[in-house]
Amino acid sequence: MLPIAIDGMGGDKAPGEIIEGARRAADELGVPVVLVGRPEELGTDHGLEVIAASEVIAMAADPASSVRNMKDSSLVRAAEAVRDGKASAMISAGNTGATMASALLRMGRIKGVRRPAIATPIPVPGSTPTVLLDAGANAECQADWLVQFAQMGAVLARARYGIAKPRVGLLSIGEEPGKGTPLVKETHALLADAPLGEATFIGNVEGRDVMTDDVDVIVTDGFTGNVTLKTLEGSLRALVNALFAVFAANDEAKAASDALMPGLLPLYAQLDPDSYGGAMLLGVDGVCIISHGSSSATAIVNAARVAKDMVEGDIVGLLRAAIQPE
Amino acid sequence: MLPIAIDGMGGDKAPGEIIEGARRAADELGVPVVLVGRPEELGTDHGLEVIAASEVIAMAADPASSVRNMKDSSLVRAAEAVRDGKASAMISAGNTGATMASALLRMGRIKGVRRPAIATPIPVPGSTPTVLLDAGANAECQADWLVQFAQMGAVLARARYGIAKPRVGLLSIGEEPGKGTPLVKETHALLADAPLGEATFIGNVEGRDVMTDDVDVIVTDGFTGNVTLKTLEGSLRALVNALFAVFAANDEAKAASDALMPGLLPLYAQLDPDSYGGAMLLGVDGVCIISHGSSSATAIVNAARVAKDMVEGDIVGLLRAAIQPE
Repeated sequence: MLPIAIDGMGGDKAPGEIIEGARRAADELGVPVVLVGRPEELGTDHGLEVIAASEVIAMAADPASSVRNMKDSSLVRAAEAVRDGKASAMISAGNTGATMASALLRMGRIKGVRRPAIATPIPVPGSTPTVLLDAGANAECQADWLVQFAQMGAVLARARYGIAKPRVGLLSIGEEPGKGTPLVKETHALLADAPLGEATFIGNVEGRDVMTDDVDVIVTDGFTGNVTLKTLEGSLRALVNALFAVFAANDEAKAASDALMPGLLPLYAQLDPDSYGGAMLLGVDGVCIISHGSSSATAIVNAARVAKDMVEGDIVGLLRAAIQPE
Repeated sequence: MLPIAIDGMGGDKAPGEIIEGARRAADELGVPVVLVGRPEELGTDHGLEVIAASEVIAMAADPASSVRNMKDSSLVRAAEAVRDGKASAMISAGNTGATMASALLRMGRIKGVRRPAIATPIPVPGSTPTVLLDAGANAECQADWLVQFAQMGAVLARARYGIAKPRVGLLSIGEEPGKGTPLVKETHALLADAPLGEATFIGNVEGRDVMTDDVDVIVTDGFTGNVTLKTLEGSLRALVNALFAVFAANDEAKAASDALMPGLLPLYAQLDPDSYGGAMLLGVDGVCIISHGSSSATAIVNAARVAKDMVEGDIVGLLRAAIQPE
């Protein structure tokens, strides 16, 4: 396998936690890893190869102009490494928009793909995750893009999560086909006739279905998808924080919560965003993993695991086969 | 106080739980209550007055045509009771769209209000709730409607939740003013200059802010708001169910969770949708509370509490004063 290129400069905890995560990924997953960034900041203690890049795109920088102007940035160099066959995948916890723009401009789109989409696995206790897309690549969408998101999401659900016959739902505000915005209604009509391979379109689903095992792939525009994803993260964090306060209220509560830890820890690990490592940018002609800005070393290890699975499962190849070139 | 009119025929558990809730509301809150519906199905054991209505709008019926054609339905009669000064408020756990249409067509809009909006209080552990609107009345919105939602939400946050200087946020996918859809960008520009009384526009907020005390009122279109609300409900239910499974795993876990109950029960009660009783339809010229279709008797009692507070606080009068007639 070609090395996984990890942007050493991107993320709130860069470069320290990113370097540590890259080193651990190489050790724990047995995959080759190359760090991308400023050699003097990345150091050499990690023992990994480095692709030198002199510039860093800031977390809050404008994505399009940054990628256009900063040709020697770690993000652009990481995407070029994939394009040029020097890396099998790129990972960044940096500026999300610039990560997408770098991947799109350097790797290009899979033939026939109208727009790439961010696919995020939503944890479902006791079940396989629900694949949500688009989780934020395209604030505004057209119905035919959403049909492709359904096709790409179905490929991912099968190949990465082992769901033989994925159920694809369209996010709306009621189950009836007439519910929702004009975009939702138009997409509903198109999805009813669209080729989805082994997957089935089950109609509209609602926000309350996201964390259930009633649906495997949920398709929506990038605005709604991003709000949904962040609402989920926020509500789980709020509840977990409230639970911790109950557990720490007094000695009796502390003892009781200790007794529950064998059951609580696996649940916590399943719901922790770091466990998922990153979202996948589907539709570009290469593997691009977008990690949380707050990624820890563990999140980077898990992102590398996602990248490894994407590469070994040839998911880009499967996506190519699922999308009809125009 | 004029009686609160409760639709005895609406909701998954009607009429049994609704009647029980109405009876308890009269007892526990000391407010006059009148049931609306088919006298033969409502019975007389409850000891409450009844406004007779021979028709029932089904949960899945088309709202507009139902309200137009079923003039003797419990929903239409309840709205008429408010219009005619026979009731101070209406409550229904029935068809949400038909509840809105009944209120809108019979009570009319407050002068100057472009569109009514559904305002839902989102529980925030350890803090006042966040008022989310529109939670589903208008799937598509215009920027000037959202400005009015901000004005109405600010009135509610002050008058009902005691927040002297509410912070109003606009739901988007990034904090910067340039993030989001054209609707969000246009609304952001309008809100920056809009009169909000004692409230302050704090700019864009994200899904992860909903359940925090960083914002008091969140404004969005009814599609995004409804998806957000249902996503919250679904994620909290998923986590609570997963916790119950951990608590019931074995005898030791059961004993430990029993010890934690004094802390967990108040949290559970705060997050339980039944505690909130219902959403408020703001902008119609009267008090209209929309309860969950699954409302229990307790949810109806809490909806009556919301109605009582709305009436006693003259929130409709405060909304009239906050909205500029065109």
